[in-house]
Amino acid sequence: MLPIAIDVMSGDREPREYVAGALRALADDAELRATLVGDPQLISAALSSQPDAVRARTALAAASQVVTMEEKPREAIRHKKDSSMRVAVDLVHSGGACACVSAGNTGALTAIAHFVLKTLPGVERAAIISAIPSAHGHTHMLDLGANTKATPEQLRQFAAMGAIIARDVYAVAAPRIGLLNIGEEDMKGHEVVQTAHALLSSSGLNYVGFVEGDDIFSGDVDVVVTDGFTGNVALKTMEGVAGLIADRLRQEFQASFLDRVAGAIARPVLRRAAAGLDPRRYNGACMVGLTGIVVKSHGSADSVAFSRAIGTASLAARRGLTGHIAQALRAQEIGA
Amino acid sequence: MLPIAIDVMSGDREPREYVAGALRALADDAELRATLVGDPQLISAALSSQPDAVRARTALAAASQVVTMEEKPREAIRHKKDSSMRVAVDLVHSGGACACVSAGNTGALTAIAHFVLKTLPGVERAAIISAIPSAHGHTHMLDLGANTKATPEQLRQFAAMGAIIARDVYAVAAPRIGLLNIGEEDMKGHEVVQTAHALLSSSGLNYVGFVEGDDIFSGDVDVVVTDGFTGNVALKTMEGVAGLIADRLRQEFQASFLDRVAGAIARPVLRRAAAGLDPRRYNGACMVGLTGIVVKSHGSADSVAFSRAIGTASLAARRGLTGHIAQALRAQEIGA
Repeated sequence: MLPIAIDVMSGDREPREYVAGALRALADDAELRATLVGDPQLISAALSSQPDAVRARTALAAASQVVTMEEKPREAIRHKKDSSMRVAVDLVHSGGACACVSAGNTGALTAIAHFVLKTLPGVERAAIISAIPSAHGHTHMLDLGANTKATPEQLRQFAAMGAIIARDVYAVAAPRIGLLNIGEEDMKGHEVVQTAHALLSSSGLNYVGFVEGDDIFSGDVDVVVTDGFTGNVALKTMEGVAGLIADRLRQEFQASFLDRVAGAIARPVLRRAAAGLDPRRYNGACMVGLTGIVVKSHGSADSVAFSRAIGTASLAARRGLTGHIAQALRAQEIGA
Repeated sequence: MLPIAIDVMSGDREPREYVAGALRALADDAELRATLVGDPQLISAALSSQPDAVRARTALAAASQVVTMEEKPREAIRHKKDSSMRVAVDLVHSGGACACVSAGNTGALTAIAHFVLKTLPGVERAAIISAIPSAHGHTHMLDLGANTKATPEQLRQFAAMGAIIARDVYAVAAPRIGLLNIGEEDMKGHEVVQTAHALLSSSGLNYVGFVEGDDIFSGDVDVVVTDGFTGNVALKTMEGVAGLIADRLRQEFQASFLDRVAGAIARPVLRRAAAGLDPRRYNGACMVGLTGIVVKSHGSADSVAFSRAIGTASLAARRGLTGHIAQALRAQEIGA
């Protein structure tokens, strides 16, 4: 397999955190090869202390610029042609990498990925998809923020791509697709979801109808489709609620001596419950619908979370994500 | 204080659950007076077994129809003029009640409330607001689903009304207002939030800028403004995540004998943590911007949750919600 191009410069953290994440991913997976993209001095220094087995699977691609979190997408395309983000995406385009990963500015990454890689024929806009823990496994949700809105036809394309990913990358047989809305009845919602509902109902996809926010976690549906604005708000809301609950539990288990004792006894069980829901475990959202694989890591990902995003990229590449979608397009599974 | 009109017929549950909720609210608050609206036989039967102290504070308003959860808003207005929902709202309009509460169809309740009560001058559309637990108390969020979309000007009106409710009903001094978006930087989001951002920035309100989904819980902002589609999805997503975490904890504390022992020891602490976050405690969302008080209960509310919605209506009426907003309108706090 080709190496994965890893932008180690972009995101809310210091580059060393992302370098550490890359090294962790290399240690976790002996088959993985990586090209670290960014400041060559910084990367060389980090690699120099690594064992030969890791260094042998690691290359360096120099980039002199960094796309900031505030950068406007268009300006990133125009003025940051030697940024770590752009060089990483370019490597996918030139065939030097099978996928790329970045924790940087979502808007800029989406714009650069569309500009360099282009969408597959039949796909108007790429969408960001991620696996989200649910009652009986996972729900695959898209768009999580590649676009600020979506037309009904784009929502239909997202649904088709989501179904292919659930089936061909995550081995879900006949994935059930739901369209996110504020009620399950046919007449609920604004005209965009109404029109998309009609398109999906006659699409030949395994479409089960409207679903609501709590259905993301119910296990009753495998793919949840929405526009990037709503999807991103829902994703951040999940993180916020989970964080609030974790904080409350920590506070209550610290409230008195007896509570601390109870906390010590319950800790292994709490840890087990938390591990299954740890957002770091689910880090790494795929941008789908492009001619190559681009994975977006959470901007504030630590090294553990960032290594998971690299794992997501590796899984998508090994399972042939782009090829499956392109094939489905040719077979008119996606195109109208 | 005038009685609160309580629609005991509409919602996902049996009427007896809502009647039980009303009786619980009457038991909890000795000042409360209630008019139960619905099937007179059912209500009389339920009241007959009650102590005199409760019966003395309870009246009955007969309604021969029920608005179903599938009913289209327009049809509910046209064909359900003797429904429990309509009669309850009519009681507020005629001055027979200080507020009304219903667990029924949100779309129909919104439509009937607008049709019967009308919006206050200067308010284009009413919004649904609720208190949501956050790191340091509560965040007041609107619109949670009265409308499927909102114009920038409507978002500005929601912000102004949210601030008045936080200040005058919940005693938050100088509430900080945030506009929900998919990034905090000025250029993020679609044109509706962009235009609303500009309106809010020059509004004289205590507007702190864009916030993301996780900021609802951070305690860094007191009022979160969004359109009813996004707000409703976020609200249901919160419920879904909290339910998933509770289920995982229950499962893990049942996994083995030792886990069950740990669970028994940790139970009081877990209960305390859960109590502060119990969605039933936060049931009852106010529809604001109308000439009277309408409170929407969750459709699947049990008697405990329904009694809380009645409590919300009672608080809003006692604190003079409608008067505060009308006064602010006259003082041009809301009107542009």
